[in-house]
Amino acid sequence: MSGTTLNPRAGEINPARTVSELKELRALTGNAQGAQRVAFTDTWLTARDFLKDKLAELPVRVRTDPAGNLWATLEGERDTALIIGGHLDSVPNGGWLDGCLNVLAGLEVLRRIAAQGKPPVTVRLVDWADEEGARFGRSLFGSSAASGHLKLEELRHLRDKDGITLPEALARVGVDLERAPQAREELRTAGAYLELHIEQGPVLEELGLPLGAVLGTVGVERHTLTFRGQAAHSGSTPMHRRRDALLAAARMAQEIYSIAARHGGVCTIGSCVTRPGIVTSVVEECSITLDQRHLDADRLAAMWHEAQEAARRFAQEGNVEVEFGYLWSIEPIPFHPDLIDACEAAILEASGTAHRLPSGPLHDAAEVARAGVPTVMMFVQSLYGISHNRIEDTLEVHLEASVRALDRLADKTMRWLTREG
Amino acid sequence: MSGTTLNPRAGEINPARTVSELKELRALTGNAQGAQRVAFTDTWLTARDFLKDKLAELPVRVRTDPAGNLWATLEGERDTALIIGGHLDSVPNGGWLDGCLNVLAGLEVLRRIAAQGKPPVTVRLVDWADEEGARFGRSLFGSSAASGHLKLEELRHLRDKDGITLPEALARVGVDLERAPQAREELRTAGAYLELHIEQGPVLEELGLPLGAVLGTVGVERHTLTFRGQAAHSGSTPMHRRRDALLAAARMAQEIYSIAARHGGVCTIGSCVTRPGIVTSVVEECSITLDQRHLDADRLAAMWHEAQEAARRFAQEGNVEVEFGYLWSIEPIPFHPDLIDACEAAILEASGTAHRLPSGPLHDAAEVARAGVPTVMMFVQSLYGISHNRIEDTLEVHLEASVRALDRLADKTMRWLTREG
Repeated sequence: MSGTTLNPRAGEINPARTVSELKELRALTGNAQGAQRVAFTDTWLTARDFLKDKLAELPVRVRTDPAGNLWATLEGERDTALIIGGHLDSVPNGGWLDGCLNVLAGLEVLRRIAAQGKPPVTVRLVDWADEEGARFGRSLFGSSAASGHLKLEELRHLRDKDGITLPEALARVGVDLERAPQAREELRTAGAYLELHIEQGPVLEELGLPLGAVLGTVGVERHTLTFRGQAAHSGSTPMHRRRDALLAAARMAQEIYSIAARHGGVCTIGSCVTRPGIVTSVVEECSITLDQRHLDADRLAAMWHEAQEAARRFAQEGNVEVEFGYLWSIEPIPFHPDLIDACEAAILEASGTAHRLPSGPLHDAAEVARAGVPTVMMFVQSLYGISHNRIEDTLEVHLEASVRALDRLADKTMRWLTREG
Repeated sequence: MSGTTLNPRAGEINPARTVSELKELRALTGNAQGAQRVAFTDTWLTARDFLKDKLAELPVRVRTDPAGNLWATLEGERDTALIIGGHLDSVPNGGWLDGCLNVLAGLEVLRRIAAQGKPPVTVRLVDWADEEGARFGRSLFGSSAASGHLKLEELRHLRDKDGITLPEALARVGVDLERAPQAREELRTAGAYLELHIEQGPVLEELGLPLGAVLGTVGVERHTLTFRGQAAHSGSTPMHRRRDALLAAARMAQEIYSIAARHGGVCTIGSCVTRPGIVTSVVEECSITLDQRHLDADRLAAMWHEAQEAARRFAQEGNVEVEFGYLWSIEPIPFHPDLIDACEAAILEASGTAHRLPSGPLHDAAEVARAGVPTVMMFVQSLYGISHNRIEDTLEVHLEASVRALDRLADKTMRWLTREG
């Protein structure tokens, strides 16, 4: 299928071509179980070659940075760069849109801008390396390298399930882990960063809206709560004598819904493990995981504080002990207010209605924003709110609207950059 | 330590000797981790030899039946037998009293009766084989053989953790599994069955009472409840959109306390398993085990009915599914009203106060009662309500009171048997 047929008028955005290219990529790098573009694998390299072939038709310089991120640069009147980013890598058995929509929509925007001559600012498309972290458990690899947040000492000994180390997997695709932090240089001239992504949640679908402007990525508090009571025979122990660790944990499973409602965030207990965990004994020890997220740091702190208070209260009332264990946390990363406004305006022009929402999942955009680059993301509706699964999908009409809106946002951002400069 | 010193007056019960013999047995068959008299092992045979040595001093006939139960028979004026039973076998790292108190207290009662000449009825002491089922997972082996409830087809292929089959383990101690059901013959002349046991629960301790008359063994309903919702990203899924399987299960963990309170039984959720069980996902599937016990069959049925109703309601309210799986059940086994009265009277004579309570755990007595033999059990207080553990303990003054009460109960039961005869 030639670009000429699909896009008879050069210099105009052609969203249908993006949908067509997404399908090409799916056929090339997916199977009946879904997308298989796990970072640093042969299938991922195939996806990269597909992208390079498309870029070869444009007046752009293509190179891979020391962290394995692929950059296509269209020189502009100024060195200041508008960056559009995404990731071709997927989880195993992943969806056809997660990550690659951003890359191929960005490609289409780059084509449109290139066709109109030298732009006022430099425009760059980046395909980040290993956003998903599906193989080594470390997500946002390439963008962390660019933002200066890569901790080599945590990465050198990571192994995949076959025992291959991250440095070995990287070397196979020409990346030296020890040099990866040099990717930081790439953001030196960055003026703004844009990222389009499927929502991976049900909010826009529920509102009946195709597109939303993303306020930032939420902060996360992630902890374990371990309740300890006393194992006791299920037949001989009266109810009032029990020190039932599961009972206290179970009350938390309900309480988190009240905590989330009070603050407007989300709370999840994803795992519950009971010991001894046998049918004939009261539960002696019950460990649960708690994941809390909010776009507002104070609200997030209050949610975690209230969870601890409730856990201590339930423990006391149930005559059990509770212990808290730290798993992980990250502060909320708000996007740039001017770019959020620009994003909303672009969405209104492309689809007539807009919505602002936070992003629950992290994205490469969060790393770029942490590095101080003015950033915004745009979400397009996900059907059923489902992602990381072969049934992940978005209406084609919404995909096309997203490409159009990203194009408008790119224009607005270039104007914003030149006004500032 | 000689019996003569401890029991200067022949023909009188000597409870201190029982405590002394329990300590001898502990030294002989236990270690720092607790009792090690697992059925069919060398240590168990050592315990049996200890018992046989004691029995050799009495005018009793000693034999092992086809199921490996050891019987000591003191001929009386009638063939009708008063049986006193217990089990020398223990769980690994078990307590010093569970099972063997009954045997050694019965031995002392047998001594007292034998010293007074030919009793009005035949008196038999039985050491049941493998009450605990610790090695092959099948408890009440010997008493089930005697009651006619042994299912050979379920037993032939049982293996211990070292791969040894039950028939092999039995052959080593001279028992042919295929012949074990012939043990049923032993109960042909049974007129009554008495069993003293530590409570293994906290009820008597809480009431400050040494002894209780047992009403029967409770019926048990044991089921799995599996709730199925939808896995969803912990960051991108609003609370009101979740189909959280853990939430419904957690509500059950509280509800069982209300159900038990309404009916006076006990309910236990001993295990909770979550899938995918990861910190970043709403729980898609949550399986819990439910164990419900009551002495009254109608109340037990009502408890299980109400649990199902509640589970369906919580599932509906949480937009998840629920499925029930059968694990095991047994009807309540009430003991004989005349013998319960006799037991209470014996306890009052021995200690001044009495209490009636059901048994949550099963015991060999339940099998004997199921076979139609008038049966009663007597419980003696367990410290901390703890059993199956090396810290299992009972005050010596309570142990001595229990031997005295069992002796009185034996006398009352002989009178009851001759009155009936």
